[in-house]
Amino acid sequence: MTDPTHLQWMLRCLELAQRARGYTSPNPMVGCVIVKDGEVLGEGWHPAAGQPHAEVFALRAVQANYPDNPDLTKGATLYVNLEPCNHHGRTPPCTEAIIQAGIGEVFVGMVDPDPRVSGGGCDRLRAEGIKVTVGIAEAECQALNEAFYHRVLHQVPFGILKYAMTLDGKIATTSGHSYWITGESARREVHRLRADCDAVITGGNTVRLDNPHLTTHGLSDRAPLRVVMTRSLDLPNVANLWQVDAMHQTLVVTLPNQNPELQTSLRDRGVEVLEIPELSVPWVMTELAQRGCNSVVWECGGVLAAQAIAAGAVQKVYAFIAPKLIGGKDAPSPVADLGYEQMTQARSLSRTNFKQIGDDWLITGYLDSSQLA
Amino acid sequence: MTDPTHLQWMLRCLELAQRARGYTSPNPMVGCVIVKDGEVLGEGWHPAAGQPHAEVFALRAVQANYPDNPDLTKGATLYVNLEPCNHHGRTPPCTEAIIQAGIGEVFVGMVDPDPRVSGGGCDRLRAEGIKVTVGIAEAECQALNEAFYHRVLHQVPFGILKYAMTLDGKIATTSGHSYWITGESARREVHRLRADCDAVITGGNTVRLDNPHLTTHGLSDRAPLRVVMTRSLDLPNVANLWQVDAMHQTLVVTLPNQNPELQTSLRDRGVEVLEIPELSVPWVMTELAQRGCNSVVWECGGVLAAQAIAAGAVQKVYAFIAPKLIGGKDAPSPVADLGYEQMTQARSLSRTNFKQIGDDWLITGYLDSSQLA
Repeated sequence: MTDPTHLQWMLRCLELAQRARGYTSPNPMVGCVIVKDGEVLGEGWHPAAGQPHAEVFALRAVQANYPDNPDLTKGATLYVNLEPCNHHGRTPPCTEAIIQAGIGEVFVGMVDPDPRVSGGGCDRLRAEGIKVTVGIAEAECQALNEAFYHRVLHQVPFGILKYAMTLDGKIATTSGHSYWITGESARREVHRLRADCDAVITGGNTVRLDNPHLTTHGLSDRAPLRVVMTRSLDLPNVANLWQVDAMHQTLVVTLPNQNPELQTSLRDRGVEVLEIPELSVPWVMTELAQRGCNSVVWECGGVLAAQAIAAGAVQKVYAFIAPKLIGGKDAPSPVADLGYEQMTQARSLSRTNFKQIGDDWLITGYLDSSQLA
Repeated sequence: MTDPTHLQWMLRCLELAQRARGYTSPNPMVGCVIVKDGEVLGEGWHPAAGQPHAEVFALRAVQANYPDNPDLTKGATLYVNLEPCNHHGRTPPCTEAIIQAGIGEVFVGMVDPDPRVSGGGCDRLRAEGIKVTVGIAEAECQALNEAFYHRVLHQVPFGILKYAMTLDGKIATTSGHSYWITGESARREVHRLRADCDAVITGGNTVRLDNPHLTTHGLSDRAPLRVVMTRSLDLPNVANLWQVDAMHQTLVVTLPNQNPELQTSLRDRGVEVLEIPELSVPWVMTELAQRGCNSVVWECGGVLAAQAIAAGAVQKVYAFIAPKLIGGKDAPSPVADLGYEQMTQARSLSRTNFKQIGDDWLITGYLDSSQLA
């Protein structure tokens, strides 16, 4: 069994790591604690892509905390929730900084998920005689960076399908009216989810019907890229998504030669419009991964949600449920045709969680990908 | 504030009362405790309609417990969760038994909800010099007998709409296949619900598609009356609901002259068939109240569920939710058209509750009747 002290420091790393939630993509969230004789010498976390890694900030913190004792890190123990990097990226390798500081022992939460580099950082440290232990609070470490983990392994972002429905399973009335299904607290939780994610994807129908903002409504000083998938580009000339600025960017993906006038008008307003030969979920997900998105939220109608599920682009579900009945045989529900005839074919969710939010409920769970055809 | 001792004895009454859950209709569940000098002398509960009331059983218990001391009830305190009856029904009035036993003080959980008799029992006791206090654990007492309370006040049974749906709001696949949505534990909970209720109502479509049993599957030695509402009586000649015996009765309600051959065949097998000029939810609910049903469960498709809601025949909702996605634009959802165009018209649930049952969830709540048109 792991010494509970090690667990405690690793959980502290996770706490530190989360301070940069929403800011690190395409990088993971990483926190680091340097300890000697049971005392913290310094802490750090990776604040954003392009900035130094957590280990470097922690080492700098030791220097800052003890300016008169430059050798204090010699023989100290370093905790970090992800394997230190061993390659020159935008910053020099952390392994070298650790070695140079004379760190004596390193506890790593989880190895780097990229199979090309996985284990390399630990090997490098061990080659220098540093004792390395891997797998402290590993499940928690993997959970924190599940999106990064998924993007690195599959080269597409981690997909979250979010919807809000009544207790009788409707996301709108028969006439398409949908606000508000849930209360303010639940909607605030959605803003928080957006603040944590790199992109929000919706469809043309949602833009036409709901005219959403898809922002964090002031909850964060960053916002996810807003992506509209629309075959026809038959969209209104005035829409909240066309209001772009440095923080709120919008990308419209459509088929070639659709609505050229609107294209021009949108580009004039700073909206990016991409024409691609075939509008598909995998294309969009690959594009977003290449743009550095670790995570995307699908906030769309049932048809696009079904396409995303069928394409394996949904790993996790956020289902908000409101304590009300609206009724409607033809009122839309969250997921359109998946092609299943038998209830036994249903896609099951695992690791589910339940939370009351105001008067509403939030059920989350992970979609079992082993059932994918 | 109520003396906690009184509260404790009243909660004991509720415990005793619930021993007869499912057996007392059209009567309420009632428990009674007789106490003297902090000691219980005797306890009783009403076991079934036609049997003596709880107070009589408690008084008899004192006699049985202390055969050598016939005067022990003199000056004792009696606790009962519902106002003692003051009229000759199938049994003599409890007020007289209490007076004859020389009880000195009576604590009543709640008054009789029937406005014609409400308070009469308490008045009768007070007229004899017995001190009577009303309203101990009143909310709990009303909750226990919410069905009785509703039936007495409105002359129709308390209606529960029960459904099981996927997390994307479907009660079946597009082709109508529905088993099983929830797991065994949740289905067991449904059997328990049926065991507590007096009738289960379903529609012809559910009989045709699902061929349900609608029994308690051995969980109880009683079963609710199974009611089928069908305009056409276009039902299969062989169905689980046509298997009737002393415990499992089935009532089919249809329009006049529908499918005479099947009518004859069903009657031959002991199924009751009623032809009524207009098949309506209020008619069926009134009929069931007259047959002594305090509570009914609607276990039906979305169309009948919507009719029941619109007719005010649903007071409480039991929504079982399974952690799976089945998809299907035309897959049925729990409630068909209620005629609402705006989400703000949705019927809201209050006093909601949430429970995990196996891998599934159960959300319950009370439908706000003030929104009824």
